[in-house]
Amino acid sequence: MSHNSFGHLFRVTTWGESHGPAIGCVVDGCPPLIPLTETDIQGFMNKRKPGQSRFTTQRREPDEVKILSGVMVDEDGIQKTTGTPISLFVENTDQRSKDYSEIKDRFRPGHADFTYDAKYGIRDYRGGGRSSARETAMRVAAGAVARKVLQGVTVRGALVQVGPHKIDRANWDWAEVDNNAFFSPDAKAAAFWADYLDGIRKAGSSVGAVIEVVAEGVPAGWGAPIYGKLDTDLAAAMMSINAVKGVEVGNGFDAASLTGEDNADEIRLDDVGRPVFLSNNSGGILGGISNGDPLVVRFAVKPTSSILTERKSITSKGEEVNVMTKGRHDPCVGIRAVPVGEAMMACVLADHFLRHRGQIG
Amino acid sequence: MSHNSFGHLFRVTTWGESHGPAIGCVVDGCPPLIPLTETDIQGFMNKRKPGQSRFTTQRREPDEVKILSGVMVDEDGIQKTTGTPISLFVENTDQRSKDYSEIKDRFRPGHADFTYDAKYGIRDYRGGGRSSARETAMRVAAGAVARKVLQGVTVRGALVQVGPHKIDRANWDWAEVDNNAFFSPDAKAAAFWADYLDGIRKAGSSVGAVIEVVAEGVPAGWGAPIYGKLDTDLAAAMMSINAVKGVEVGNGFDAASLTGEDNADEIRLDDVGRPVFLSNNSGGILGGISNGDPLVVRFAVKPTSSILTERKSITSKGEEVNVMTKGRHDPCVGIRAVPVGEAMMACVLADHFLRHRGQIG
Amino acid sequence: MSHNSFGHLFRVTTWGESHGPAIGCVVDGCPPLIPLTETDIQGFMNKRKPGQSRFTTQRREPDEVKILSGVMVDEDGIQKTTGTPISLFVENTDQRSKDYSEIKDRFRPGHADFTYDAKYGIRDYRGGGRSSARETAMRVAAGAVARKVLQGVTVRGALVQVGPHKIDRANWDWAEVDNNAFFSPDAKAAAFWADYLDGIRKAGSSVGAVIEVVAEGVPAGWGAPIYGKLDTDLAAAMMSINAVKGVEVGNGFDAASLTGEDNADEIRLDDVGRPVFLSNNSGGILGGISNGDPLVVRFAVKPTSSILTERKSITSKGEEVNVMTKGRHDPCVGIRAVPVGEAMMACVLADHFLRHRGQIG
Amino acid sequence: MSHNSFGHLFRVTTWGESHGPAIGCVVDGCPPLIPLTETDIQGFMNKRKPGQSRFTTQRREPDEVKILSGVMVDEDGIQKTTGTPISLFVENTDQRSKDYSEIKDRFRPGHADFTYDAKYGIRDYRGGGRSSARETAMRVAAGAVARKVLQGVTVRGALVQVGPHKIDRANWDWAEVDNNAFFSPDAKAAAFWADYLDGIRKAGSSVGAVIEVVAEGVPAGWGAPIYGKLDTDLAAAMMSINAVKGVEVGNGFDAASLTGEDNADEIRLDDVGRPVFLSNNSGGILGGISNGDPLVVRFAVKPTSSILTERKSITSKGEEVNVMTKGRHDPCVGIRAVPVGEAMMACVLADHFLRHRGQIG
Repeated sequence: MSHNSFGHLFRVTTWGESHGPAIGCVVDGCPPLIPLTETDIQGFMNKRKPGQSRFTTQRREPDEVKILSGVMVDEDGIQKTTGTPISLFVENTDQRSKDYSEIKDRFRPGHADFTYDAKYGIRDYRGGGRSSARETAMRVAAGAVARKVLQGVTVRGALVQVGPHKIDRANWDWAEVDNNAFFSPDAKAAAFWADYLDGIRKAGSSVGAVIEVVAEGVPAGWGAPIYGKLDTDLAAAMMSINAVKGVEVGNGFDAASLTGEDNADEIRLDDVGRPVFLSNNSGGILGGISNGDPLVVRFAVKPTSSILTERKSITSKGEEVNVMTKGRHDPCVGIRAVPVGEAMMACVLADHFLRHRGQIG
Repeated sequence: MSHNSFGHLFRVTTWGESHGPAIGCVVDGCPPLIPLTETDIQGFMNKRKPGQSRFTTQRREPDEVKILSGVMVDEDGIQKTTGTPISLFVENTDQRSKDYSEIKDRFRPGHADFTYDAKYGIRDYRGGGRSSARETAMRVAAGAVARKVLQGVTVRGALVQVGPHKIDRANWDWAEVDNNAFFSPDAKAAAFWADYLDGIRKAGSSVGAVIEVVAEGVPAGWGAPIYGKLDTDLAAAMMSINAVKGVEVGNGFDAASLTGEDNADEIRLDDVGRPVFLSNNSGGILGGISNGDPLVVRFAVKPTSSILTERKSITSKGEEVNVMTKGRHDPCVGIRAVPVGEAMMACVLADHFLRHRGQIG
Repeated sequence: MSHNSFGHLFRVTTWGESHGPAIGCVVDGCPPLIPLTETDIQGFMNKRKPGQSRFTTQRREPDEVKILSGVMVDEDGIQKTTGTPISLFVENTDQRSKDYSEIKDRFRPGHADFTYDAKYGIRDYRGGGRSSARETAMRVAAGAVARKVLQGVTVRGALVQVGPHKIDRANWDWAEVDNNAFFSPDAKAAAFWADYLDGIRKAGSSVGAVIEVVAEGVPAGWGAPIYGKLDTDLAAAMMSINAVKGVEVGNGFDAASLTGEDNADEIRLDDVGRPVFLSNNSGGILGGISNGDPLVVRFAVKPTSSILTERKSITSKGEEVNVMTKGRHDPCVGIRAVPVGEAMMACVLADHFLRHRGQIG
Repeated sequence: MSHNSFGHLFRVTTWGESHGPAIGCVVDGCPPLIPLTETDIQGFMNKRKPGQSRFTTQRREPDEVKILSGVMVDEDGIQKTTGTPISLFVENTDQRSKDYSEIKDRFRPGHADFTYDAKYGIRDYRGGGRSSARETAMRVAAGAVARKVLQGVTVRGALVQVGPHKIDRANWDWAEVDNNAFFSPDAKAAAFWADYLDGIRKAGSSVGAVIEVVAEGVPAGWGAPIYGKLDTDLAAAMMSINAVKGVEVGNGFDAASLTGEDNADEIRLDDVGRPVFLSNNSGGILGGISNGDPLVVRFAVKPTSSILTERKSITSKGEEVNVMTKGRHDPCVGIRAVPVGEAMMACVLADHFLRHRGQIG
């Protein structure tokens, strides 16, 4: 019932506000004897951090992660986890609080301002406070630890749609993902999006996006019926990310339009007698349990609510006003959601890996 | 970490297999002094139970629910909850186990047979055992209790797509939902689906569907950041239903295509100074917390995997076979998923109602 | 936060009132492929059930347990667990509700009547309803399942004190425990207690008791710092049993009087180089983790609150009255607490066995 | 299943090792709008911190607590909680790691060295690492927040036994507790203990102790049957404190020796018709629910395992050695356990206060 934790055996608790002194998380349940340094984590932090291109917010957060507990240098000089909680810590450095003073009492449409006020009667309005996407930095940090737990599993994400513009799946090339500012697996789509987003950005507007995350190397048998399903936990994980409005697995919503004949993944044996699924409509999950095929999850991110066009709103004092958000924002928050989605999948898988190990000898 | 429970303060644990002697659930955390009888629950059970029309499976389960604990008749003769766990119990009566003997060792494509075997090394193959949609009967029973907790909140569901055929939202009429075999709010769509599904059924085929569930009367303030979000729990609840492959809130995946200007829900004050959202793109949730508008959730159900067309598969002994499922099945399991989706939303809301009451005085 | 569940990976949820139609529990998280029949459980039920001697209540409950889910007969005809929830069910048969009508509005001192009324405003007064020790029957049933999970671990309990009269530990003989009506490991003490309790019983009085439970065969390494300690969970488990007022591990409260020199368990190596503790002051737990020595837990049970001597009390209407409890009661509930204490230890250990398996490969 | 968290609605997660850069905790679930400053917490930190008298360890840790998140200065300049997670942070300053180098591979008898090694295969041996009582500093910090949640409830602790020497309860004076180095409510006992402990300290020995914690002002109705009992959670909370070997409520183990007549707490009405218990043998809890009387819990702390007398042990390499612990240690860790016990009770009560608020309107 802890609102700021997720996972069961691999459990992450995050804390901190956008404009407080620091943000951080505690990773509880990481097995011991896993090599882990700050460098292992920093690479993923850098992938998410703002200011990497003109298509993301121009805030400059170095996002340098520190490990404050849970590791020990062993006799061979290798720093390893000890099985105790790992405290990860990032100082907030670029806090232009003045940017936010004028929206102190104004509810920005599409943001959590109105609902936090309704629930708590008080909120840290600076940069969105706790509801800021800044919190996702700690998800990425925790995800980096989760990856270390998941030996033999590869978790990768890609942007597959920006506004109404989808990639051409025939062009999919994982190697391309690191070659453009969009984590796009389709070089052509990336080029098109660059122009398209320039227009959006200059207009002070924003658009949504769809992200696809894929995990390869997960053996059959992870997950559990009925309420501990792998896809249940993945859906929760993705929907918990800021601005996400939809999640799907495998064929997802398209499965509704198919017949049973078309949607079934037929099975055959390979040369050495191992089961092979002839298609992956299921996204690698049947009855909540992995079937050995790649796990495929997509999620939709709504357009950034902070825009330069005035929108009708009210103040916490009950006055009608028009609100325009001037701060530095992402024209498409979906871009930076790619490493966050990867991190969430890694955390869910690390959790299910440990659960599986516990339940089945 | 309990795999067969969901919810935190309003917590439901289900048990039972399709062809065992009975199925049941325990509802823990229901507040005391709420009037509750078996009749209150039975109406919802009947809505879900099979054999109601030619479009659902012809199994005949009376699904008569019994309350075994947690209630007491008070001095005025009214049976009320006592705050102790409510045990709900349904006998299984129509168990044609012979129907399933020939698939004992065969993995039906699209079903959980392969993955249960991979995970557990043993499974009750009769009717899908634990992975059968029969388990959802107890979700509906628990949902009926949840509705009693939720005074002032109305939870309703409707079928909005069958195969590729969507309703015309301009025709939406809640009153129509109980007038057709599909829980369709669009009478015309219902008529069209009847013909369409007759064809599917006669061909021994199946199709998927999309269900929309709406809750009205939820005040602003329910839910919680960051990992206890209302939409996070709703996504998990819906994805945990058998055959569900996608979940979305408000505009859902369509939000990806919109601009920030179009997706923002502007706010104004009504005649008596209360906030009014001018649109509900958010589906009633901002930052994981309800904003007072109707909650709108949709989920996609894949086509029934049990079909009369042969599909390639293997046996648990490692032989290649072709599998055709002969039992009595739903040509579109999405129909009966409507009351299940309603029940899941009611359970999530009852949970968040109690959480909200606990956290904020 | 489920009030009627305990355990994490091996999780038990109980339901039912003393005088309702039935009581039961759901055991979630039991690994698959473990042979399990009703007979395996019934033996432990019989050990706890009332009416076994003149020293326990004369209610006659056959306490016949039924398994309603979670098992399957395999190809060799052996009934085994399937990894799905195990529903255990016991009908209530000897319900003399009339015995309780006169205490409907009277708070029996020492019972939970007053506090249930304060909390819930309604309660099943018949036989104590949910607060009755009848609920412990399902703990024993769950404990029997837990024992099957715990291969190589022996859990045994004994009564070591009745009223002020302790056993002579020099006489300890486990074989004696089944030879007397008290689960006493000291035959002499059993004989003395028989006379002593006859007097207590005839006087309509009652006394308390102390129970010791010992687990042998637990390897070093089970349990976890800081809040998942093995002794933390054992303390919670024992304190949750009706009428228990104290719990201790190893030397327990006596440890307060010792010096560090006397309390330390020194370590040496045995013939084959394995660590051997030269004493077991710790009760087999250091830092919350098992050290390989027998786990030793004691708990104190208060005297039965139902006595034939009038005590001052009040009614739920706010009148002063004198209350005398006429029903059939145990002169020393501590006797029947022995199998309950064993069951709770078995459940905690099954849980920690699975946790250990999950966390450390 | 999080090993480093406790509580459900008021949930605390601690992290950090004795000789790492810092220790900290995250308090999740604290309601909003509660005034909270570092000063509110520091007073309790000072009470627990080492080096306050010659009877506690001479380590010098300033234990200055910082609040890193979860608070906001409101319009009146008052810093208040916002309902988001409160991150509390204490730097470690006095880390003489050299003291510990020689016990790197040696298992100190009575300590968790052997069991941590058995479980994890790696441990931070410096000062006990995670198993150090240093972790309890964060319990005290969290407890200070819990006290702010608990308006109208007073939680106080006292030392009632040092080695075999108990206080004279006739001398009990709460005002005396702050006048001596032992938190003793009996001035005479404090004087006696001073001499006694000087001898123990000079001999390089140690002794155990018993602490009593009392909460006044808890209304009837907090807590919940069956496994969410108030005393169950209190037992777990106290047993989770380092070196604790026993816990009891009210009469505790002495209840075993009493008759039902003597142990029952009779009830009468006071002048204004409110229920009054004529005694408090129950320690304020019946059936797991508070009855309105003071909650009384005692727990036993074993003698400090670090002593200057050699004890037989082994190394992690499997050699027999003798171990003497030279560092700076408490001759009676029970003294500093008093504020820790208070903090744990405050945390449990804050949790049950919120639970109660959620379940019963």
